[in-house]
Amino acid sequence: MLHDLFTPSVQHALDLVGIFVFAISGALLAVRKNFDVFGIAVLAEVTALGGGLFRDLIIGAVPPAAFTDLGYFLMPLVATVLVFFLHPHVERTQAAVNVFDAAGLGLFCVTGTTKAYDYGLGLTASAALGLATAVGGGVLRDVLANEVPSLLRWDRDLYAVPAIVGATTVVLCIRFDTLNAFTSGAAVLAAFVLRLLAMRYHWRAPRAWNRRSSASEEPEKATAQ
Amino acid sequence: MLHDLFTPSVQHALDLVGIFVFAISGALLAVRKNFDVFGIAVLAEVTALGGGLFRDLIIGAVPPAAFTDLGYFLMPLVATVLVFFLHPHVERTQAAVNVFDAAGLGLFCVTGTTKAYDYGLGLTASAALGLATAVGGGVLRDVLANEVPSLLRWDRDLYAVPAIVGATTVVLCIRFDTLNAFTSGAAVLAAFVLRLLAMRYHWRAPRAWNRRSSASEEPEKATAQ
Amino acid sequence: MLHDLFTPSVQHALDLVGIFVFAISGALLAVRKNFDVFGIAVLAEVTALGGGLFRDLIIGAVPPAAFTDLGYFLMPLVATVLVFFLHPHVERTQAAVNVFDAAGLGLFCVTGTTKAYDYGLGLTASAALGLATAVGGGVLRDVLANEVPSLLRWDRDLYAVPAIVGATTVVLCIRFDTLNAFTSGAAVLAAFVLRLLAMRYHWRAPRAWNRRSSASEEPEKATAQ
Repeated sequence: MLHDLFTPSVQHALDLVGIFVFAISGALLAVRKNFDVFGIAVLAEVTALGGGLFRDLIIGAVPPAAFTDLGYFLMPLVATVLVFFLHPHVERTQAAVNVFDAAGLGLFCVTGTTKAYDYGLGLTASAALGLATAVGGGVLRDVLANEVPSLLRWDRDLYAVPAIVGATTVVLCIRFDTLNAFTSGAAVLAAFVLRLLAMRYHWRAPRAWNRRSSASEEPEKATAQ
Repeated sequence: MLHDLFTPSVQHALDLVGIFVFAISGALLAVRKNFDVFGIAVLAEVTALGGGLFRDLIIGAVPPAAFTDLGYFLMPLVATVLVFFLHPHVERTQAAVNVFDAAGLGLFCVTGTTKAYDYGLGLTASAALGLATAVGGGVLRDVLANEVPSLLRWDRDLYAVPAIVGATTVVLCIRFDTLNAFTSGAAVLAAFVLRLLAMRYHWRAPRAWNRRSSASEEPEKATAQ
Repeated sequence: MLHDLFTPSVQHALDLVGIFVFAISGALLAVRKNFDVFGIAVLAEVTALGGGLFRDLIIGAVPPAAFTDLGYFLMPLVATVLVFFLHPHVERTQAAVNVFDAAGLGLFCVTGTTKAYDYGLGLTASAALGLATAVGGGVLRDVLANEVPSLLRWDRDLYAVPAIVGATTVVLCIRFDTLNAFTSGAAVLAAFVLRLLAMRYHWRAPRAWNRRSSASEEPEKATAQ
């Protein structure tokens, strides 16, 4: 039943859009890190498919969708070609990329949660896996690029919270038996808008209380001196 | 049969303790790396559940226990809240945390080995997977924090050896058909005490013979000059 | 049918050779990073078995071959002992190691592709997984050593392309129903020779067009100033 939230073709088209924009963000980081064209392709694939791959391994859906749907595999290659030839132009559209990335975040946290529940996970576990689906690709991207995952850094606008809100909305709807195309869409929209607001107003999450000194604000600089 | 080494409730309570202390170590590293509250929670979850997750994926126990037992998921969040608000106090108890971490190490290498054998792996493979269960979370923690895993570094007190001793004890007991609550407990204790001794006397493992110059002792500094 | 490309004992012997040389490359990096003997063993195991492990998890072949075949597990330990005691001599044979590594690359991309197809994946997905089998261990090695994966870096000789050629040859042979011991061997050889040529003539892949300034050639230095 949950499978039919959207018509399959709409769902699939939305998935491809999400994969594409995540791939763009991976490819752009690869260019910034000075990788060659294969490095760009690898980072695009990993960013776009990593979250869903992790989810599918956890719920035992093997082979994962990333390896059974040719479109999922080709989309990041399209993103690679685009970024490879038009890199400065794509960078100039960073704002647009961010908006699409927010859309991908909203979409993936909802479909990830729904698929996990479909495979028999509990409500909390489904929400956790929905969150992992949405943010997992970006974490893998940053690990491969040898950077601290931007998900974990305090100096980045809220990214996990919108996905948590989207995933939580879905499990609440499941719990109260009101999950349908409309409430799912609302959950996607909630995560999407929240992420846009977080970027617009630079909302950030707090760090631990009572960190001992202001020096810890800039650990790298402090050690470098 | 192997499942009943301890009564289920005792086993579960011990698991939760191990997960909790591993989560504390992840959360503390996250604070030191200046992550925000979500970064702290992610690192706590990954450190606590990563090793078991890897084991469950390898033996095909999906969905992994980390996603089916709510307590496993919530424990790291408790650790996150604790570290978030009481960070300096938790740091001051680093010695106590280390003792608990040693207990977690001993416990996880034994239960990891036992579970792997239960799922049909050979003796050597079971011991290897027991080791991976015990140290895997810490390796993932360090990779996400963009640091060289402390497991691999020569300037850290022995960590792998106690886990190897614990796991090997278990497979020897299985081999000679003497695995029971008592011998399992002895294996946990052996790994635990060995780790405590390694920390107390700063036991370290040797590096490769015939490294060419003393310069290689400090590779980063050498290159920086 | 595909299982019988080579006689099982030949196939197994070739696998062990590939695992051994990949393990040597992992162990050598561990020595350069100043890891202790356990760090060397871990990096040797991960480099040698990581790619196949990933492939087996994706296709649902659990427990993975790395945990069911004792030889696969022991080979990296032999490599560890060798590098531990004879490190300078092994380094002096770097050229020979590179040749064997090229052989491992060719072998793994072909067997990885074949095994993936055996488990029901499509042609493109099989080729992608063959590539992942061949290069996955090296990527994991570099991530654990906290370095940018050499696979992704533009200043390294072509590594992905030979594997892609080998994997593509295999799927074309499958497509046209001409896969046998001879064509498989040819695919291995093609990847092997291509990698040797890439090392001999320092073939490199292009980076993105229109990167904006020469400063981006050396991003680290630029920021450091």
